[in-house]
Amino acid sequence: MQLVTEDNITDLAVERWATAGDPRLAEVMTALVRHLHDFAREVRLTEAEWMAAMQWLTRAGQISTEKREEFILASDVLGLSMLVVQMNHRLDPRATPATVLGPFHIEGSPELGYAEDMSDGLSGVPLYLHGTVTDLDGAPVAGAVLDVWQSDAEGLYESQLAEVDEARLRAKYTTREDGSFCVRTIAPLGYSIPMDGPVGDLVGRTGISHYRPAHIHFLLNVPGFEPLITHLFQEGAQYLDSDVVFGTKQELVTAFEERPTGPTPDGGTSATPWLESRYDFVLQRRD
Amino acid sequence: MQLVTEDNITDLAVERWATAGDPRLAEVMTALVRHLHDFAREVRLTEAEWMAAMQWLTRAGQISTEKREEFILASDVLGLSMLVVQMNHRLDPRATPATVLGPFHIEGSPELGYAEDMSDGLSGVPLYLHGTVTDLDGAPVAGAVLDVWQSDAEGLYESQLAEVDEARLRAKYTTREDGSFCVRTIAPLGYSIPMDGPVGDLVGRTGISHYRPAHIHFLLNVPGFEPLITHLFQEGAQYLDSDVVFGTKQELVTAFEERPTGPTPDGGTSATPWLESRYDFVLQRRD
Repeated sequence: MQLVTEDNITDLAVERWATAGDPRLAEVMTALVRHLHDFAREVRLTEAEWMAAMQWLTRAGQISTEKREEFILASDVLGLSMLVVQMNHRLDPRATPATVLGPFHIEGSPELGYAEDMSDGLSGVPLYLHGTVTDLDGAPVAGAVLDVWQSDAEGLYESQLAEVDEARLRAKYTTREDGSFCVRTIAPLGYSIPMDGPVGDLVGRTGISHYRPAHIHFLLNVPGFEPLITHLFQEGAQYLDSDVVFGTKQELVTAFEERPTGPTPDGGTSATPWLESRYDFVLQRRD
Repeated sequence: MQLVTEDNITDLAVERWATAGDPRLAEVMTALVRHLHDFAREVRLTEAEWMAAMQWLTRAGQISTEKREEFILASDVLGLSMLVVQMNHRLDPRATPATVLGPFHIEGSPELGYAEDMSDGLSGVPLYLHGTVTDLDGAPVAGAVLDVWQSDAEGLYESQLAEVDEARLRAKYTTREDGSFCVRTIAPLGYSIPMDGPVGDLVGRTGISHYRPAHIHFLLNVPGFEPLITHLFQEGAQYLDSDVVFGTKQELVTAFEERPTGPTPDGGTSATPWLESRYDFVLQRRD
């Protein structure tokens, strides 16, 4: 008979999960068992703590909806999401680095022309973000689609708002023959992660800042190149040093320069002061 | 600025979670971050696998109810529950060992006298389970309450049945002056864990048996002694070698002897053949 003891239980559990038909599932599950047991042994987890963990996990599942993904948030604040991104996108150092996707991307954003306005009348400081998409050698990539999304001046994304019936602060821009693009929007704001759930309860018991610095999301899925999911962050923004999801990278920080009323990069003019940022995305060719 | 890289992200995350105000929370969370990252690095978790894990966790929370605790089940089948039990109950080898509580205990069971029937007319083979409760030196423990519960002949517990308005296959028995007790019930059956949820989906992709061997639960919370939560298993029962929750221990296996019609341990007689099991519980005094 299989005698279960504190000494053999990890081996027994590993042996069982190694029976998974798919070798990769067996590899992942046996590693999970070992690391989970090592963790419990190292801290000598008490029964009360174990039960608190079970209840925490259940609450995290039950507060989740299509618009709120508490486990992704947990993964984010534990640094797991960013670790997984980095392990899976070991790009050439010359290439624009990846960061987390986040839970707010929506498929099917409208296609806008060079410098067309994706903020469409929402209040905020006008921002022109323009530059090029090139390969590692600086050759322009024409026809590259930049799928762009961001929060509004309250720090809210479209998917967090109950009644929005058209695309809001998201659009697809396509590079011109010379690889150039221009996004016309409003300056994004930093925001807090949701603090009214189990992740917030835990974070609130620490000195961890629960804010993300101001940023704009980009997804470039260009044929022949490694896909790139990233953000651009505003230089000097609050929380750059303490992004709660560990998403900030030096290479992704860009200055938002203040410009007076007058001519804008699209050849028009602005009646109010505006912000200009120049950023060049560098894509790595797929092997 | 905090530059996040694949090399430093674990240290950064550990540093943040170390700011928890409660030192024990800081200890547990920093260990969790390290082990979680080690696991992801070791298997080089892909983004698709990470997303599958997020969805699995969400489903596990959403299928959970007051009567179904999918995360406890996950902990059980990964061997974590039993590991935690064992780490927290390192008893003298002479003492009756602990095993998992399981999700089916109900507070406030009725108090029954020596050999009073807790199966109350339910169909099944009559079982008299009798013995003593003593300390490590064999001295009887009088007035010890044995809180007993089990599944029915279909493998179902009271809490799994929608409409039950009185206690069903659960009772409290109190030892007599000489430490003796006698539980009158029906023989329990082995049963499958619920296979219609995310835990079942995973187990179903392995060669793991999803059954528990026949057992009866006992909880002895006797003043002056270490509390004991355990099961007794029927010797020779199916699945003893492969208990899906790792709960089986040699010391907890007891013979169910077949007896013909005739006299029973309570001084009565049985009109049908019955089963007899003798088991002596040994409690360890609290320091």
